[in-house]
Amino acid sequence: MKFTKMHGAGNDYVYVNGFVETIEDPASLSIAISDRHFGIGADGLVLILPSETSDFRMRIFNADGSEAEMCGNASRCIAKYVFDHGMTDKTSITLETLSGQKRLDLQLAEGIVTSVRVDMGEPILSSKQIPVHSDEDEIIDFPIALDGKKVNITALSMGNPHVIIFVDNVDEIDLPKVGPKVEHHPLFPKRTNTEFVQILSPDHLKMRVWERGSGETLACGTGACAATVASILNEKAERRVTMELKGGTLFIEWSEADNHVYMTGPATTVFEGEYFPA
Amino acid sequence: MKFTKMHGAGNDYVYVNGFVETIEDPASLSIAISDRHFGIGADGLVLILPSETSDFRMRIFNADGSEAEMCGNASRCIAKYVFDHGMTDKTSITLETLSGQKRLDLQLAEGIVTSVRVDMGEPILSSKQIPVHSDEDEIIDFPIALDGKKVNITALSMGNPHVIIFVDNVDEIDLPKVGPKVEHHPLFPKRTNTEFVQILSPDHLKMRVWERGSGETLACGTGACAATVASILNEKAERRVTMELKGGTLFIEWSEADNHVYMTGPATTVFEGEYFPA
Repeated sequence: MKFTKMHGAGNDYVYVNGFVETIEDPASLSIAISDRHFGIGADGLVLILPSETSDFRMRIFNADGSEAEMCGNASRCIAKYVFDHGMTDKTSITLETLSGQKRLDLQLAEGIVTSVRVDMGEPILSSKQIPVHSDEDEIIDFPIALDGKKVNITALSMGNPHVIIFVDNVDEIDLPKVGPKVEHHPLFPKRTNTEFVQILSPDHLKMRVWERGSGETLACGTGACAATVASILNEKAERRVTMELKGGTLFIEWSEADNHVYMTGPATTVFEGEYFPA
Repeated sequence: MKFTKMHGAGNDYVYVNGFVETIEDPASLSIAISDRHFGIGADGLVLILPSETSDFRMRIFNADGSEAEMCGNASRCIAKYVFDHGMTDKTSITLETLSGQKRLDLQLAEGIVTSVRVDMGEPILSSKQIPVHSDEDEIIDFPIALDGKKVNITALSMGNPHVIIFVDNVDEIDLPKVGPKVEHHPLFPKRTNTEFVQILSPDHLKMRVWERGSGETLACGTGACAATVASILNEKAERRVTMELKGGTLFIEWSEADNHVYMTGPATTVFEGEYFPA
């Protein structure tokens, strides 16, 4: 099986061209190839497929074999893959995902894709839709008890639930200790991703993310968008920000014109190869 | 740069054919390619090179860029690489390493290498040569104080220092806690690798290894040899044993005929690829 290993801000997947390769059991394959000692090593498997409604279709599987709805970092890599491999000459691509169609805008240097802007859609602020167990309509700068202390949170969904907590220094957070406590807090019936955000200046933020079911990761696209929206709602940031994550830098804009969040970031091809199943 | 990703009992390296690829700075390359999110992902880099004294020469670099003297798991993979790629038709190969020439005997199935026997040389029992800070000539079933408790150890060198501790159940050992305490014990001026060994039967052992500078690893070839020798010296095992490690199974023989330790184990090609440096 031929594949390409790519990452977006350190979020790394094995990309397989479903136009030429037939994958019968992508869940099992994702488990096997994601293993970082016995497999290729990745956060999961991404299949690039034909679509009846969009230019391309993405299916994305986590390292545990579960299918994810959408991943902003992976969709940037798909845009780079299909353009760099000559599968399209469009610089604005539509992508079918389990959470709807996404638009990808390519930025080129010398004919090679260097970064991609992804329309991540509108943030969802309604408590019921996030979901949060609360009578409040929205959860913005809302005090909760965490480990016996009062902490103010902001909660929203970018298709998946996020809780944002502002801190003075993200490097000092004991994430493996506090992350699970937010993730499993009784307020969140479907658990939650958590972003700790430090405001460097109104257009320059820094965050660390605790992903639901995965722990700390190098980058989370929906998390970076949620953190930006929360910072704006709390009047700590402007509409366009540079967001520093452990794995790289993303540029996030929450548009006043259409209420959509746009994420721009890098996409990198690390190697191409042929995999020999055991 | 073209490369092959292989592992021996889970000990995984990126293999580069130095007959066709020129690597100017292998230390830096090893750091870059070993990164499991931004690089290829490996325990390090192995170069397969021409030799003036042996059939082939191995240079092996750890993930931190330091050059290692020798690695039994990697030498098995080299044997598979050169045979499967048609670089030799010999089934007994000599390999030049920084710790001398090693002999590799290939075992084939349908023309493909499935396992390799490596002559790991003679164990060194002399305290001074291991080295151990002790007036005893040899350290066999020797009591030391560890964390306020008396623990009996056996120490020997397979080119690198090893301490073996017998336990009833290796799965119950808190390795991240106890490993560093042995590694940095004042008895060992160059620190030490540590193997915890469980005797399942006289020809079937199970071990976990704490590698000096690396922590717990899936497999350590010299460690498996040292653990077998120590088990024989303590009259707990026969001369040929099956050794179970986290990453796979090795067969170890300490020969009475020549006093050499022979390790037989698997070598697996996972994928071949082309790497694009950032």
